[in-house]
Amino acid sequence: MSIHRLHKRAAQALRPVSFELDWLRYAEGSVLVTQGETKVMCAVSIEDDVPGFLKDKGQGWLTAEYGMLPQATHTRTKRESQSIKPSGRTQEIQRLIGRSLRAVTDLHALGSRTVRIDCDVLQADGGTRCASITGAWLALSLAMSRLCQQGELTANPLRDHVAAVSVGIVEGAPLLDLDYSEDSNCETDMNVVMTGSGGFVEIQGTAEGAAFSRQELDTLLALAQQGITQLMDAQKRVLAKQ
Amino acid sequence: MSIHRLHKRAAQALRPVSFELDWLRYAEGSVLVTQGETKVMCAVSIEDDVPGFLKDKGQGWLTAEYGMLPQATHTRTKRESQSIKPSGRTQEIQRLIGRSLRAVTDLHALGSRTVRIDCDVLQADGGTRCASITGAWLALSLAMSRLCQQGELTANPLRDHVAAVSVGIVEGAPLLDLDYSEDSNCETDMNVVMTGSGGFVEIQGTAEGAAFSRQELDTLLALAQQGITQLMDAQKRVLAKQ
Amino acid sequence: MSIHRLHKRAAQALRPVSFELDWLRYAEGSVLVTQGETKVMCAVSIEDDVPGFLKDKGQGWLTAEYGMLPQATHTRTKRESQSIKPSGRTQEIQRLIGRSLRAVTDLHALGSRTVRIDCDVLQADGGTRCASITGAWLALSLAMSRLCQQGELTANPLRDHVAAVSVGIVEGAPLLDLDYSEDSNCETDMNVVMTGSGGFVEIQGTAEGAAFSRQELDTLLALAQQGITQLMDAQKRVLAKQ
Amino acid sequence: MSIHRLHKRAAQALRPVSFELDWLRYAEGSVLVTQGETKVMCAVSIEDDVPGFLKDKGQGWLTAEYGMLPQATHTRTKRESQSIKPSGRTQEIQRLIGRSLRAVTDLHALGSRTVRIDCDVLQADGGTRCASITGAWLALSLAMSRLCQQGELTANPLRDHVAAVSVGIVEGAPLLDLDYSEDSNCETDMNVVMTGSGGFVEIQGTAEGAAFSRQELDTLLALAQQGITQLMDAQKRVLAKQ
Amino acid sequence: MSIHRLHKRAAQALRPVSFELDWLRYAEGSVLVTQGETKVMCAVSIEDDVPGFLKDKGQGWLTAEYGMLPQATHTRTKRESQSIKPSGRTQEIQRLIGRSLRAVTDLHALGSRTVRIDCDVLQADGGTRCASITGAWLALSLAMSRLCQQGELTANPLRDHVAAVSVGIVEGAPLLDLDYSEDSNCETDMNVVMTGSGGFVEIQGTAEGAAFSRQELDTLLALAQQGITQLMDAQKRVLAKQ
Amino acid sequence: MSIHRLHKRAAQALRPVSFELDWLRYAEGSVLVTQGETKVMCAVSIEDDVPGFLKDKGQGWLTAEYGMLPQATHTRTKRESQSIKPSGRTQEIQRLIGRSLRAVTDLHALGSRTVRIDCDVLQADGGTRCASITGAWLALSLAMSRLCQQGELTANPLRDHVAAVSVGIVEGAPLLDLDYSEDSNCETDMNVVMTGSGGFVEIQGTAEGAAFSRQELDTLLALAQQGITQLMDAQKRVLAKQ
Repeated sequence: MSIHRLHKRAAQALRPVSFELDWLRYAEGSVLVTQGETKVMCAVSIEDDVPGFLKDKGQGWLTAEYGMLPQATHTRTKRESQSIKPSGRTQEIQRLIGRSLRAVTDLHALGSRTVRIDCDVLQADGGTRCASITGAWLALSLAMSRLCQQGELTANPLRDHVAAVSVGIVEGAPLLDLDYSEDSNCETDMNVVMTGSGGFVEIQGTAEGAAFSRQELDTLLALAQQGITQLMDAQKRVLAKQ
Repeated sequence: MSIHRLHKRAAQALRPVSFELDWLRYAEGSVLVTQGETKVMCAVSIEDDVPGFLKDKGQGWLTAEYGMLPQATHTRTKRESQSIKPSGRTQEIQRLIGRSLRAVTDLHALGSRTVRIDCDVLQADGGTRCASITGAWLALSLAMSRLCQQGELTANPLRDHVAAVSVGIVEGAPLLDLDYSEDSNCETDMNVVMTGSGGFVEIQGTAEGAAFSRQELDTLLALAQQGITQLMDAQKRVLAKQ
Repeated sequence: MSIHRLHKRAAQALRPVSFELDWLRYAEGSVLVTQGETKVMCAVSIEDDVPGFLKDKGQGWLTAEYGMLPQATHTRTKRESQSIKPSGRTQEIQRLIGRSLRAVTDLHALGSRTVRIDCDVLQADGGTRCASITGAWLALSLAMSRLCQQGELTANPLRDHVAAVSVGIVEGAPLLDLDYSEDSNCETDMNVVMTGSGGFVEIQGTAEGAAFSRQELDTLLALAQQGITQLMDAQKRVLAKQ
Repeated sequence: MSIHRLHKRAAQALRPVSFELDWLRYAEGSVLVTQGETKVMCAVSIEDDVPGFLKDKGQGWLTAEYGMLPQATHTRTKRESQSIKPSGRTQEIQRLIGRSLRAVTDLHALGSRTVRIDCDVLQADGGTRCASITGAWLALSLAMSRLCQQGELTANPLRDHVAAVSVGIVEGAPLLDLDYSEDSNCETDMNVVMTGSGGFVEIQGTAEGAAFSRQELDTLLALAQQGITQLMDAQKRVLAKQ
Repeated sequence: MSIHRLHKRAAQALRPVSFELDWLRYAEGSVLVTQGETKVMCAVSIEDDVPGFLKDKGQGWLTAEYGMLPQATHTRTKRESQSIKPSGRTQEIQRLIGRSLRAVTDLHALGSRTVRIDCDVLQADGGTRCASITGAWLALSLAMSRLCQQGELTANPLRDHVAAVSVGIVEGAPLLDLDYSEDSNCETDMNVVMTGSGGFVEIQGTAEGAAFSRQELDTLLALAQQGITQLMDAQKRVLAKQ
Repeated sequence: MSIHRLHKRAAQALRPVSFELDWLRYAEGSVLVTQGETKVMCAVSIEDDVPGFLKDKGQGWLTAEYGMLPQATHTRTKRESQSIKPSGRTQEIQRLIGRSLRAVTDLHALGSRTVRIDCDVLQADGGTRCASITGAWLALSLAMSRLCQQGELTANPLRDHVAAVSVGIVEGAPLLDLDYSEDSNCETDMNVVMTGSGGFVEIQGTAEGAAFSRQELDTLLALAQQGITQLMDAQKRVLAKQ
């Protein structure tokens, strides 16, 4: 249990987190999330249209895309635009982001609109999918408030906070908010997405090596819950400062 | 809590499960899994080679592919071979199957070989990814035993059982082994993969509508554990009969 | 002329053929064809719509797709879903199946419907395209009868039987219904598709090595005609048993 | 039986055929075939290498590609380069051309070389695949002679002539060498490829509407044989003039 | 300045240029351009429709495609239809051809029509993109005149000539109309497109090795202007002869 | 000639330009370029390998890629990773960036290394390809200096500055450094790339509407030269501050 983390970080401590709101000029809402060395740009655009399967259903849609700049990683990653398809990993992540945000969005209150959230990783040091969710919520919140202020929406479709964090077991020790080197060496890796009211939206736990026990699961879930509470406090603080 | 399931099935009951071993002539091991109306063909082939990233590492590899026949579903599904890429869902599932089986396989004991497991859904009535994992384990077990009998392997690389089941909350009731209509209407959906020694390999829980509470999570995990125990008993019975 | 075939089969004998009707639950009609070690699943679905080029023409359409499970073959075949396009061979075969069935279907009597026939090879030991045609006819027959019974069609669009068989010259000997090892070694390979009234729908003869003479052609055509007559008898018997 | 053909052509007459040899400057051999209004450019290139599956087998390979310029057809055709794959039709035709030429080529005498034959249709008025085969033979003949003259080959790998023609039944009348309007309206369509010694390399007969009888088949084969003899005479004449 | 060009061509001389009008039967206008050993087929088709972005805008559209036959080049080029996408070079060229022709076409006078110009290189010896533009103008001119004669257009949308030529600096000497071997060795390469009234439509100058000076630029532009004037004279002569 | 530009900018004035060096942690050199509202991230990575066509040639290679984040533009742009190919525009731009930087890089001095420059547009308000070139030069300069300091290179392969700017004619007025709204409305658009010693690397001038005269060309080139001089001064200043 005496694992040494970078910068003497405690096992149950988050990395420093900051949010720069409206970093982009043309998006309806945007946030540059920094969590340790991980940097993700989250941006929201809104279209006055819905996909075919929702035509005339009286509701909107919300979808997410995830990308990584080639030079975001320790070793340059091949640009996906030059292969035929987004990798399985990319698709998994963007589906996860979309589901997480839809879980706290009232699609009927959104009306016949499509919200597109782009999460682009400028620098990757672990936890990019979780930082994307936490940041995407902020960008969505900015965009929804604007639609309300402009009188385009009568009620804010965003019903609750959402944030996410990774937890894992590294050399037998349960750790909060893994960085890349920890993530590469963990025995168990878990991403947890929760709402402001304390419900789970998504739990994805994977044993990379040995299977994990029920007791380890309980420890990891408690750690995640604590980290997510802190992340939501940070979301509230930055919105309050506006 | 008084939900009515098809064929008067109890909330905590599995659907009838059966395995037909060596259904295919040319695979190293194959199983036709039937779980209720879901039918999946699992087949194992072995190549005397490893992918590039494992060359000269003294270990083997195991990978899985998942497919669905166009007419397996209530409404015919477009054949993936005619689109450009496997869908995100297909990729997610085949990565899950591969990770689950690798969790109980000693890749060093396998030597410089690649195991390919194909899980093809002939008929789909919910739970196809879990049935794929449970069946793939049996097909892998048949193939590994054969390699040992033929003297190609000195130790069986398969270290433990693996099986999987879906659980979920439908109209407030926790249910084991969802069929398609239950899966389409559930509030929370969870796939659980466990080893014979009771460890978790993978937990994927998703709130489709409202978030789920910690207590609901505990109930679902207990239900999954009970179902997986029964599935492993069935795996053992069919192997014993050989 | 003293070639030795597997199981002491005579040069002019078909392999054992059987049909399991309605093997799939959700298709409008389905048949599992077994011809020797070759197993093909044929399934029919019907959509209440026609492709763009037939809009408002007062007729329907019938099309076929053909696939092969990766583990169907002696050595595992790469899954087509992961390459960019169906191979030329796959496209040739599915066009052939479609043409053959359209030759005995009254597309006007079908109304504004599209019939999709999927032929998926579960196990391949030669003659898969011919078994697909013979089986597809049965699956189509089941589906068309059902539409008539349900009062959706007033006249059955299926005007005649269709069946197909391969013939070839192996080591100088003309053989009926080649299996995989015969097919791999034949000098001439011919697929013949005929109707119940004795007309030819398709003849595809290819010299793999030396060109074939007019006399050899005549012998092969007679052999094919005899085999097709037997296959149609089998089609009739299995339908009569229903 | 009194069908009227364009330019008062007789039912059993070919369209005017001409060959311009070495029309292209950089190919090893090239021919511009004109058959009625159909114009095909056939060109041969030779590489001092063989595909992977023939490495160290002591033989060469011959393969063909087929294309159609967008403005070759009555109505402009979409350029294939901008879709993802060659159509099924294109693949069928280029496989046919390749098989036909390989049937008269001694691949061992060719040595470790790959012959690539490109058949590009500049103008299409029916019979393009047959004209491609007839012209490709000439281009191949020019290229092989050159290799012999240059002392690179000791024996000419080309063992015999190959030519091809289409025949069909239009309004009940058997016709030789269909043009586009005849081909669009025929009941039965047959492409026949033969060698100089009178053997069949390929027969592809398709009933577009009603099935065809054995007697019709015999008539069509005789017609094809007569046309192919004339085409080979033309091949010989143009080579003799060189 | 004493560079030796093929056939004793002067530094400021064009290669011999000729145009065969209406070489293709089904296109609305077509020209086979020969410039030295470079041969390009330019063909125009017209559709009575416009792309989506121009619907109901009361104007037409003009677009171009460019291709190269595999055997057009010194060493055979891979057919683009078998790769996934047109190369960057192909796309650059077809965008250039389209822009150049649109610069002299009144799209409003064209009405709701789409002009498609295909430029297919049959033989490539340098300058194919410029020959494509010069020839495309002639093919377009033929097609537009026909539409006027048929009374479909009241005013000819073609307002001026367009022609193009390459210039470059090879071993320090400024040359007009580079052939392939000159183009491969030039220090600076420039394509210039001009109108009949002497305006520039496009200048694309690239230093392949050392950067070029302002004085070199002036020399090259003068050379290009002189060559383009000659090409337009040739365009006028061949139209006058009709 | 009295055109009104945003923020009262003069016709011959650049937008405010700034460079943030080493904005990314893992790249060998990186620069965030801001030019008005346009923001481009330029990053350099270096591999100890060369592409196949340069193996054993004793020289290195330099290549560039260009991308645009979906939310960089006024209206969200579809992510290229989800289409099959980079658009023609993207390919044109990345080829231009690569050529421009290669023009001032001694590839032999680079040794057997490949330099990859990624230019990713975070926000687009016109001039993104020119800002990419100007910024890429700085990122390359940082990376090359580091290789020299680390003793991996004995001589700096970077021989000169490179910078680029757009010029154009809007409502008859020649303007320097067009923003998006000016670029959308210009009659002539020209991108100019120059070296520190005053040579031209690339001139791409396009008449969007009417052709442009020789005199207009001269005016635009002078304007570009002045702007590029200022950009190089800025490059020098920011490097000097390090």
